[in-house]
Amino acid sequence: MKATVTVMPKDGVLDPQGKAIGHALAGLGFSGVAEVRAGKVIVLDLAELDADRARAQAEAMARRLLANTVIESFRVQVEG
Amino acid sequence: MKATVTVMPKDGVLDPQGKAIGHALAGLGFSGVAEVRAGKVIVLDLAELDADRARAQAEAMARRLLANTVIESFRVQVEG
Repeated sequence: MKATVTVMPKDGVLDPQGKAIGHALAGLGFSGVAEVRAGKVIVLDLAELDADRARAQAEAMARRLLANTVIESFRVQVEG
Repeated sequence: MKATVTVMPKDGVLDPQGKAIGHALAGLGFSGVAEVRAGKVIVLDLAELDADRARAQAEAMARRLLANTVIESFRVQVEG
């Protein structure tokens, strides 16, 4: 199964990378950008064939390594 | 509209960050991880209210700044 873990800074947490991207976009002439948030996405190719177990594995990996749950939230999507 | 730009290294392009995550997961005892690819996700809060125009704007931003299209591919999702 392929599991995609998307990690984003939690609402209210300062996101300097997102702010920098917003400023760069404005500098390039892109207007109408109210807010930018930057996160990361990790695509895991798992040997596990059961979707529920693959999701549980990916969530454990996210909590243990991929996300800092104090300041980041994560979402797991699983596909065959 | 909210536009989400997901940027991933193209297939065949070396992904040292993904490799490092794979090794770290193995070191933590997570087995059955065949491959890891790491990318980034940028969530744009756009003033544009038309979905097609918002998508076109986000694609222009991705090509211009957010992705290096020589080594990265990107995908844009737009929601209300």
